[in-house]
Amino acid sequence: MQTSITTYDDKPHEECGVFGIFDRQAKAALEVYYGLFSLQHRGQESAGMTVSDGESMETFRGMGLVTEVFRNFPGKDGYIGIGHVRYSTTGSSIPSNVQPLQVDCAEGPFALAHNGNLINTAPLRQQLLQSGADFQTTMDTEVIIKLIARSRKAAVEDRIKEVMGILRGAYALVACTDHAIYGVRDPFGYRPLVIGKTETGFVLASETCALDAIDAQFVRDVLPGEIVTIDDDGVHSTMYEPAVNHRRAICSFEYIYFARPDSVMNGQSIYQARLNMGRALWEETHYDGDIVMSVPDSGNVAALGYSYASGIPYSEGFLKNKYMGRTFIQPDQKQRERAVRMKLNPIALNVKGKRIVLIDDSIVRGTTSGIIIRMLRNAGAAEIKLCISSPPVKYPCFFGIDTAERRQLIAAKHSVEEIREMIGADELHYLSQEGLAKAISCLRGEDMCFACFDGKYAEPLPESMEARVK
Amino acid sequence: MQTSITTYDDKPHEECGVFGIFDRQAKAALEVYYGLFSLQHRGQESAGMTVSDGESMETFRGMGLVTEVFRNFPGKDGYIGIGHVRYSTTGSSIPSNVQPLQVDCAEGPFALAHNGNLINTAPLRQQLLQSGADFQTTMDTEVIIKLIARSRKAAVEDRIKEVMGILRGAYALVACTDHAIYGVRDPFGYRPLVIGKTETGFVLASETCALDAIDAQFVRDVLPGEIVTIDDDGVHSTMYEPAVNHRRAICSFEYIYFARPDSVMNGQSIYQARLNMGRALWEETHYDGDIVMSVPDSGNVAALGYSYASGIPYSEGFLKNKYMGRTFIQPDQKQRERAVRMKLNPIALNVKGKRIVLIDDSIVRGTTSGIIIRMLRNAGAAEIKLCISSPPVKYPCFFGIDTAERRQLIAAKHSVEEIREMIGADELHYLSQEGLAKAISCLRGEDMCFACFDGKYAEPLPESMEARVK
Amino acid sequence: MQTSITTYDDKPHEECGVFGIFDRQAKAALEVYYGLFSLQHRGQESAGMTVSDGESMETFRGMGLVTEVFRNFPGKDGYIGIGHVRYSTTGSSIPSNVQPLQVDCAEGPFALAHNGNLINTAPLRQQLLQSGADFQTTMDTEVIIKLIARSRKAAVEDRIKEVMGILRGAYALVACTDHAIYGVRDPFGYRPLVIGKTETGFVLASETCALDAIDAQFVRDVLPGEIVTIDDDGVHSTMYEPAVNHRRAICSFEYIYFARPDSVMNGQSIYQARLNMGRALWEETHYDGDIVMSVPDSGNVAALGYSYASGIPYSEGFLKNKYMGRTFIQPDQKQRERAVRMKLNPIALNVKGKRIVLIDDSIVRGTTSGIIIRMLRNAGAAEIKLCISSPPVKYPCFFGIDTAERRQLIAAKHSVEEIREMIGADELHYLSQEGLAKAISCLRGEDMCFACFDGKYAEPLPESMEARVK
Amino acid sequence: MQTSITTYDDKPHEECGVFGIFDRQAKAALEVYYGLFSLQHRGQESAGMTVSDGESMETFRGMGLVTEVFRNFPGKDGYIGIGHVRYSTTGSSIPSNVQPLQVDCAEGPFALAHNGNLINTAPLRQQLLQSGADFQTTMDTEVIIKLIARSRKAAVEDRIKEVMGILRGAYALVACTDHAIYGVRDPFGYRPLVIGKTETGFVLASETCALDAIDAQFVRDVLPGEIVTIDDDGVHSTMYEPAVNHRRAICSFEYIYFARPDSVMNGQSIYQARLNMGRALWEETHYDGDIVMSVPDSGNVAALGYSYASGIPYSEGFLKNKYMGRTFIQPDQKQRERAVRMKLNPIALNVKGKRIVLIDDSIVRGTTSGIIIRMLRNAGAAEIKLCISSPPVKYPCFFGIDTAERRQLIAAKHSVEEIREMIGADELHYLSQEGLAKAISCLRGEDMCFACFDGKYAEPLPESMEARVK
Repeated sequence: MQTSITTYDDKPHEECGVFGIFDRQAKAALEVYYGLFSLQHRGQESAGMTVSDGESMETFRGMGLVTEVFRNFPGKDGYIGIGHVRYSTTGSSIPSNVQPLQVDCAEGPFALAHNGNLINTAPLRQQLLQSGADFQTTMDTEVIIKLIARSRKAAVEDRIKEVMGILRGAYALVACTDHAIYGVRDPFGYRPLVIGKTETGFVLASETCALDAIDAQFVRDVLPGEIVTIDDDGVHSTMYEPAVNHRRAICSFEYIYFARPDSVMNGQSIYQARLNMGRALWEETHYDGDIVMSVPDSGNVAALGYSYASGIPYSEGFLKNKYMGRTFIQPDQKQRERAVRMKLNPIALNVKGKRIVLIDDSIVRGTTSGIIIRMLRNAGAAEIKLCISSPPVKYPCFFGIDTAERRQLIAAKHSVEEIREMIGADELHYLSQEGLAKAISCLRGEDMCFACFDGKYAEPLPESMEARVK
Repeated sequence: MQTSITTYDDKPHEECGVFGIFDRQAKAALEVYYGLFSLQHRGQESAGMTVSDGESMETFRGMGLVTEVFRNFPGKDGYIGIGHVRYSTTGSSIPSNVQPLQVDCAEGPFALAHNGNLINTAPLRQQLLQSGADFQTTMDTEVIIKLIARSRKAAVEDRIKEVMGILRGAYALVACTDHAIYGVRDPFGYRPLVIGKTETGFVLASETCALDAIDAQFVRDVLPGEIVTIDDDGVHSTMYEPAVNHRRAICSFEYIYFARPDSVMNGQSIYQARLNMGRALWEETHYDGDIVMSVPDSGNVAALGYSYASGIPYSEGFLKNKYMGRTFIQPDQKQRERAVRMKLNPIALNVKGKRIVLIDDSIVRGTTSGIIIRMLRNAGAAEIKLCISSPPVKYPCFFGIDTAERRQLIAAKHSVEEIREMIGADELHYLSQEGLAKAISCLRGEDMCFACFDGKYAEPLPESMEARVK
Repeated sequence: MQTSITTYDDKPHEECGVFGIFDRQAKAALEVYYGLFSLQHRGQESAGMTVSDGESMETFRGMGLVTEVFRNFPGKDGYIGIGHVRYSTTGSSIPSNVQPLQVDCAEGPFALAHNGNLINTAPLRQQLLQSGADFQTTMDTEVIIKLIARSRKAAVEDRIKEVMGILRGAYALVACTDHAIYGVRDPFGYRPLVIGKTETGFVLASETCALDAIDAQFVRDVLPGEIVTIDDDGVHSTMYEPAVNHRRAICSFEYIYFARPDSVMNGQSIYQARLNMGRALWEETHYDGDIVMSVPDSGNVAALGYSYASGIPYSEGFLKNKYMGRTFIQPDQKQRERAVRMKLNPIALNVKGKRIVLIDDSIVRGTTSGIIIRMLRNAGAAEIKLCISSPPVKYPCFFGIDTAERRQLIAAKHSVEEIREMIGADELHYLSQEGLAKAISCLRGEDMCFACFDGKYAEPLPESMEARVK
Repeated sequence: MQTSITTYDDKPHEECGVFGIFDRQAKAALEVYYGLFSLQHRGQESAGMTVSDGESMETFRGMGLVTEVFRNFPGKDGYIGIGHVRYSTTGSSIPSNVQPLQVDCAEGPFALAHNGNLINTAPLRQQLLQSGADFQTTMDTEVIIKLIARSRKAAVEDRIKEVMGILRGAYALVACTDHAIYGVRDPFGYRPLVIGKTETGFVLASETCALDAIDAQFVRDVLPGEIVTIDDDGVHSTMYEPAVNHRRAICSFEYIYFARPDSVMNGQSIYQARLNMGRALWEETHYDGDIVMSVPDSGNVAALGYSYASGIPYSEGFLKNKYMGRTFIQPDQKQRERAVRMKLNPIALNVKGKRIVLIDDSIVRGTTSGIIIRMLRNAGAAEIKLCISSPPVKYPCFFGIDTAERRQLIAAKHSVEEIREMIGADELHYLSQEGLAKAISCLRGEDMCFACFDGKYAEPLPESMEARVK
């Protein structure tokens, strides 16, 4: 019997986290290690880092967690470094598709790490191939690097700006040369990127929790459409001016599920946003119950919010086994319920005879919700009212999140009542889109992307993707 | 730079978890795998299992987590199996000291897994050596096996009973032959062991959470001094009658820290006991505050108890990084605080300007409490009142827990007020021993062991250990 | 497709090589490494070493070649060391059956490495089990160790002498305590063992080539029935006086195939013995031919001897691929011939149109001889006269060599003429037993064991083995 | 103590072996595996293969021997395959520099394996960088691929032909698309490449021994300057017509040392050429002696030639340890002699008191010759006359062989007499260049490259290399 990599969850998968540092006094490799470690929740399949000492650049990459990939730590010393953790979206997870991607260009070595997903990769790749390019990977990242390498502009930031006029889709980039690091965020701002300050240098990171990890101070978010250059002269900013003055489309799922609750993103505390979602759920449901509990860990904060608002006591309903690791022996199909129980075990004391308000962050395919509810019933729950801190996920995401195909999304085909019946809950309520928008109180609704809920994508999709939406 | 195995915590270490199954319809190896996985919190350094199909017996062991050791799953099929997870106490963690230990005896193959620690290993080993025995490991387990092998009694349970007259100290054993499994608990009952029932067989486990994991029903605890035999005729019980009719000494730290909150031990729900400890802390302190938070995850339930009793809202104060793994790059000593922060990051929103009641389960050496408090202050906490859900740990444990030497125990040398000052808390309160005893409400105080708090060991210590107590 | 460990040869397998050193000025681990490396031809499945610094002893073992097992070299420093390479005979090749075996006895740590095979393991093991012993391995070595540990004698050499009265079969032992090393050879002298001298200490080894490897001078062979003790006082000898004054039975296959040609064993140069075998083959055949060639490498020296005696030029007929390694992708059965060709490719230039006298050392199962002859015919050989530098192997060996079961031995069932026809040679001649005895000119025929050829075992076999001889 | 990769020899290093197959009935991956295995002597640092089933292409690569890299065999089925073994020349041996290199081009997937070394890589790379190319490796191979990808020609062979007009230096290429394989040899023919035929397809290989390995028939050598296309229509040939009608420059060191003796290269049997070299050495020296012996294995055949011509008996003087593996514990510098002895041990019987004619193929740095001669003297040799089957190596090679820098070449700075004295031989003779040319009797001297002996490079060197020749 072979063990296999499984997750036994029903969550969307974030693709990546990126990190960069420029600090003359730092051991860059160590800082990147800590930074990536704190961004591990954004991607657990592979990790990599590029380090430069101003003279030469080296890249180290591998499959697995940060602590696994860097068990034998790279010897390379340097003061410039970028890093990447990945949950694969475009490009399979074979070693050659691990980031950062380092190349030699006319101006010298250049490395790039990319969070997001382009929607015009296919035509861009085709154009490059026609002009004689050869591709060694299947990653968007290689397309972006080749475009930057071919730009006739002199300065790296000008090359990037030129390329931004061609790219469509979501991208938060961290790049480096032998003398600077660069941070870039697409004009819609789909994916996050922040600037931090150490005592003697600067960092870039997908989330502020990575700043905390290396004791850096938060400076500000990189702006949608901004190119930030960090070198010995400090931080410089260049704005890409898009031809069309378009809206922003900041991903709402970062607030619902992806980001770490201790991060602050676009001015909004993730923890606060989730508390607000829980309160909003109470406002929208006023469910009666003996206890509020969550599907750990992602539902915890919203459950606290529900408890605060309702006065119903918060309690731990499940013990989550934290030793799951990446590989787990697959039981036969019949025993899938047992497999979920390996990860989550109901705490009978808190469940038996109780009327439960259960909080989860989302339902994608609907595969585990039914199992969880049956587990609670078997443990003696009297009543289970399930609140989801997001609206029904009905549309696929093409901007860096791997939810699933539309046909796999339970809410794309079934009404809330049908879903309730399928999973066996006594009540089922999804947070309204208005409630969600309000919960993320530091942002205006029109600046966010809710496309996975309402299908209103911020930019026109290519035909092939259009087809997958219907 | 090499990565090294570190924990960055200040917790006592439990030594072991044991598991056994006898089930004609089961794939024993798979059941043991699931059972051990759910006992992983009791030992993360090594894992092993022994499987028999009634004809032959094989043992598979290795260093690492259950999911790592059994990545390539043993091919051996069988209906008899025992398993072990280990955090080393006696015996270094070299591969040869991994359990179960399987030997060939006159009666055929025999395997043993042991949770606990003997206090008369040295003289027993000496006697065996003098009589011509040779030892291939440094484990207590080998001493016990040799004693059983040398017994002149015919039945395995009689051999075990005979040996129990010689052993001193703590032991919960699970053993197997090619036709039965055996569960044994020392007469003091220091360490836990329970019996469960599957549809077609029986299991033994350190905790009830392992029964849940394989969908077995809880039958009862193995009694202190009891030998349980499970074979095709079901469960048989034999009681060891000690020469001296002594008290019981059930480990109170299982309730405070070790056991999983979803387990029930000696009739007492762990979750309930911890809730009670939190309530008792409130009774004893009546601290005023804006929020109650815990040092996750071990302080969570007591913190909820404090919140329920006091009405002060419970909130998450720290984000705990769950990707720590077993190896982590060791920063230089100066940066130890940063290392703790890699694991625990304060959630600024909940901390800034707040008067915090902070709940932790214990302070052993006192090395991390100070760091945690500084981290909270740096995050803007207005006031930090620390409540510990156990009395001060002043004495070493010789019965299966690796707290530390007496000279390393901060409470052995310092008053509570001194400790408070050293770690920088505004207030510091340890739960009283009476409060603790009452919190574990299903057990009588005189049936429990509080020796690490009050030095009253249930049985006389050998001289060498006596010296370490002073 | 999985690769598998294969050898694609038809040779008997030697079980082991042993090595020991006592040298106050040496780094024992390094010397043992070099010694074992030069004995690698005696066993490629596993390797191990035990090192002591006079204070403490540690053992390091693993599966694979010496250079693989000790890729990360043991840190232990010491001046006492023993080592072992193994091709498994008794006991499967699982890690726990790797030698040396180190135990703690009443007198302290003791380690043993064993080359050979006992023929009364079963009753000895049974007696030990009845007296309460437990076995953790299936190796003869553990039986010997337990017997030594149980002896009531004070001195280690006296304990060993006592145990020699009980052991039956072949054994060359190297052992160590924290203050001495010991070398032992069974009274028949089946397996070799020599003493060497470094500038500041002494060594023990299966063959003299291991002395050369560490620049030690050959002193003498350990005598059959001798126990040698080496400590700070130098070399001491104790003779075991057997109850029955029996003959010697030095293994003749060591000279034919196993030993390295640069070794000298019992006064006889291996190279010279093989040259003599080649000359004797010429004397017995007077085959006409254009060239003499060998099946490399084991037939090389005898082929040179044939060439010298006959005047027929020696030539290389095959290119042997030296990168075979331990694992090789198994082609389907039909392609077995191709698999042999991967290892041995005929050099067409030397084969085409030639009348070839081909020299090989032995035929066991007869599986590859036919393939080799076909390969030569396909390469254009005009005539192939095959000379084997040993008599037909008709009986199994119970004294440390894994030839095969009698039913698998081609010569046990078929006449020479039948074999010639089966393998397709034009002529086939086996060296006569007299010719072989004469070729090993430093030894008297009556001091050697030819049992695999004539079935005359030097000592009575137990019934179970007797049955396998018929 | 760490083991390290060492060779303890003083040989030039061949850079690569290449292999390709197009066979509708074959399992290409398995054939490539066998082919590479038989070319392992041409490169032991890494191995790789590319396989296509006509639909898709996959590449598998790794560090180590063929049997190590493909321990877990690629699952990919196909009828098109190419492979590569490598001893690194240009480009460090990091994983990303392992071949074949597979890319996606405008026309689809393309993979290339390269044996040789370009002398105008630097300017070509510079031009490509200036035109916007990015490089992910430091290999010549990537330069060649990018040039081919950028060609405007339609057919792959026309693209290759165009690129051949730009490349300078040595290259034997094997490439594949999803519908054909290609073989290319530079106009000077420095490096070898042959065509073979299976029952249902065709193969390409560096040497004929790889044809034998997969039971393919030798068809012919690829001609210098030829591009061979193999697809469903069979073998097509295109000749590159160089602007200057230049000479050929077939590497003479292939015959002296690199190639396997069972190969036939440009019509010349390697074995025969080496026999001839041995005979020529006798003609040039007429040394008197008791025995002729070689430094195994590379000197064996020339030693036989010397023995045949002189009538002095050939004998094995050294036992070569075949278990060296790739890693070996490095002794301290003082013990270097011992390290060589681990690999080569004199067979005292053949050496003691003997006047020895010793044959070796070449002396590069001169580091081991002195050790070998001392070892023979210590073993009692009466006289040592050393014959080298090549002229003195005085100039570096820029065409695919890693000899050493000129300053490291002992013959660049010292006369033969000085060298004789430095290494301690009684006599020292190098084969004359005329003798060497004559020994390779199927080729005209003017068609060969002897530049490492006489400095007459076949084509003008760039300035940077020119400097290294002086």
